[in-house]
Amino acid sequence: MDPGWHPANLGAGVIVSPRSTAEVADVVRVAARHGVPIVPHGGRTGLVGGGISRPGEIILSSARLNRVERLDAVERVAVVEAGVTLEALQVAAAERGLEPGIDLAARGTATIGGMTSTNAGGIMAFRNGVMRHRILGLEAVMADGSIYSDLTRVVKNAAGYDLKHLFIGAEGTLGIVTRVAIKLDPLPKATATALLGLPSIAALQAAIDLALRSDVGQLRAAEALWQGYLHLTSKALGWSEAGVDLAQPVFLLLGLSGSDTSALQAALERIFEELAEAFPDITGIIATSVAQERMLWRLREDTDIIYRAYPAAPSYDVSVPLSEIEAYVDRVTRELAAIDPGLKPFVFGHLADGNLHLVFNHAGPFAEGIAAKVEAALYHGLGQCGGSFSAEHGVGSKRIHSLVQTADPVKLASMRAIKELLDPANLFNPGKLFS
Amino acid sequence: MDPGWHPANLGAGVIVSPRSTAEVADVVRVAARHGVPIVPHGGRTGLVGGGISRPGEIILSSARLNRVERLDAVERVAVVEAGVTLEALQVAAAERGLEPGIDLAARGTATIGGMTSTNAGGIMAFRNGVMRHRILGLEAVMADGSIYSDLTRVVKNAAGYDLKHLFIGAEGTLGIVTRVAIKLDPLPKATATALLGLPSIAALQAAIDLALRSDVGQLRAAEALWQGYLHLTSKALGWSEAGVDLAQPVFLLLGLSGSDTSALQAALERIFEELAEAFPDITGIIATSVAQERMLWRLREDTDIIYRAYPAAPSYDVSVPLSEIEAYVDRVTRELAAIDPGLKPFVFGHLADGNLHLVFNHAGPFAEGIAAKVEAALYHGLGQCGGSFSAEHGVGSKRIHSLVQTADPVKLASMRAIKELLDPANLFNPGKLFS
Repeated sequence: MDPGWHPANLGAGVIVSPRSTAEVADVVRVAARHGVPIVPHGGRTGLVGGGISRPGEIILSSARLNRVERLDAVERVAVVEAGVTLEALQVAAAERGLEPGIDLAARGTATIGGMTSTNAGGIMAFRNGVMRHRILGLEAVMADGSIYSDLTRVVKNAAGYDLKHLFIGAEGTLGIVTRVAIKLDPLPKATATALLGLPSIAALQAAIDLALRSDVGQLRAAEALWQGYLHLTSKALGWSEAGVDLAQPVFLLLGLSGSDTSALQAALERIFEELAEAFPDITGIIATSVAQERMLWRLREDTDIIYRAYPAAPSYDVSVPLSEIEAYVDRVTRELAAIDPGLKPFVFGHLADGNLHLVFNHAGPFAEGIAAKVEAALYHGLGQCGGSFSAEHGVGSKRIHSLVQTADPVKLASMRAIKELLDPANLFNPGKLFS
Repeated sequence: MDPGWHPANLGAGVIVSPRSTAEVADVVRVAARHGVPIVPHGGRTGLVGGGISRPGEIILSSARLNRVERLDAVERVAVVEAGVTLEALQVAAAERGLEPGIDLAARGTATIGGMTSTNAGGIMAFRNGVMRHRILGLEAVMADGSIYSDLTRVVKNAAGYDLKHLFIGAEGTLGIVTRVAIKLDPLPKATATALLGLPSIAALQAAIDLALRSDVGQLRAAEALWQGYLHLTSKALGWSEAGVDLAQPVFLLLGLSGSDTSALQAALERIFEELAEAFPDITGIIATSVAQERMLWRLREDTDIIYRAYPAAPSYDVSVPLSEIEAYVDRVTRELAAIDPGLKPFVFGHLADGNLHLVFNHAGPFAEGIAAKVEAALYHGLGQCGGSFSAEHGVGSKRIHSLVQTADPVKLASMRAIKELLDPANLFNPGKLFS
């Protein structure tokens, strides 16, 4: 079961699905008049309870705000309504030889509005940034029903405070995002993918550094899979390749993009050879067919395999500065073993930007005492070392205590003051971000 | 005279230059107690009067906050104090094979703190975004003397409202930026530059599209120079090349970066040849030496040539969506001629992101009536078409009326409410952004 579809999401029992910004504003005005809270819903792929609703609230779904309104090949910008899925935008952009420059496994369901409100990241963030860095303009309905309209389609805009960044990542607590102007990039004509088995995180980072400096093509993806995770997904998918030694502690999916497949494959070969000079024990394969490339990606993206083995397994999503990853993983492994030697996280993630996902071999949520210890192990010192307890999943209703425990107190007080300023009646998504 | 060094900047007569964030906080607390406004100064390279001070105010200079505190090659992140110049950061980063990914002509003087507060853009923004997109973490002193501390060094952080974006581009009106964590990129080993003479904006855009899709190297710069501007700078610098036909209406400086100079030069040749198939009349040269490459860049960057010919010439800085540039330039040219046929702007700018600079052949400011007509011509419809009246220079004290005239009223009201919330006594940079 996708945790985003948790029954608690639909507790309100009432869903409205407006067809325009004006209709959203109407709903907000009526709700404000009667003091009825609004819980905005996009694709419901969130993982931290940001869409949970309760009786007496209204769910406002973006399902009918699903138009790609503008997509200009000269500008390389799309203007879309909030309910357009990432995949729908990817398809529309591909028709003009473009792509949104952001990608994630939930692409078929996640909406641009939801991705805006959660500041989604995904696979290409190390290169293109997160949603915040792709959004040029934004329209949102405010708590008094007025419409914040800032649909600029240029990257440079120094005309006052850039308030769209308040709505991006606010998880629907400051306004309802209705439209977004998003930057597009040229769609590469070709890609090539390697799966490397590596002896250490230092080897992972050296591989990424070589790939970033590749003269042919551009680094498109650098996804790390720790041994336990690859063992689980490869077994579930019936995959093995003689070229990849599954005894290695960590694996790297390395993707290049460019215009010529064989040139990119040759570039991956050169990266492999240069890496092997420093780390002679490495193994790996370069996909030679589209089917093989897809299969390598499934080993990373089919995270549902974990949830089928361990339904509702506890999952975490941290950002760690690249220079701290090795020490972080060592420490966390040690501290988790001290809590319970049977506790083994499946670890995978976006290594080039330091975003690690950890999902535990445990069905259902941890008991409260264990959860507190696990969080202490995972989050301890993360803020001080320049990381974050929530890289891309947000805070929602599940991680409020972690936000309170780890955030800078001045930031936290300013967040509360801004919420009070822009949504004094706590109309928008109550119980998320703030308790 | 650099307009940023206008005597009005120093009207306060009192400058403090703290050596640490704690000292900045002390200054703010004392100033708050006595109701003395603070005008923050970085490199004083601003062009819109953002640093103007008056008697009774204090100038807070970042000159002694000049440490590069951390620069990690694995992380590709620098943490610097606000007073570090862009060039100092570029030099420190280059020692580790890295660069800040943002560049502008005032690099030797402009400070990272000032560039943060004005959300500076420059030459590589079409590819890397503006300052806002490069900053991972930020520290600022608030109006009550408390310290907002959010020095994360990761690109993915979904832990609540990302309030650093309030300080970025706020021109010192919400807090004093004291430290910044900034993303770095690998420094290319080689660059190559072409100067093309082109018949139309359509040809400019086709050239950029080809360069963006180049398989060798990456597009690093795409700077447009309209005929009048190139004629002025080439004459002042005593430059001419047989390969560039100065009768063309518009010129493009196209820069590629990669690891091998001759491969990049060959890529520029291919772009030229492919472009010539669609536009047979184009002319152009590819620099074959470092000295020649530097000279081509001086033709674009020596904007002081204008100010020597027309001291304190009125200058404008607009963002236009790429699909609208041709129509915009046509309309503005027509409307300016209707105001005064002698009025000719020197036009140049960052074509790949739609940022045009227009500086007029007029010494000193326009008479008020003319200024209003010129602004009407330049700004008319810009907001509606998705552009901005201020791409990268900000609002300062000079452009407040333009902000009020063009901004979305809901945005403007929210800006005022946030200023009132975070700086109720109007302590920080009064008379900037708001009248």
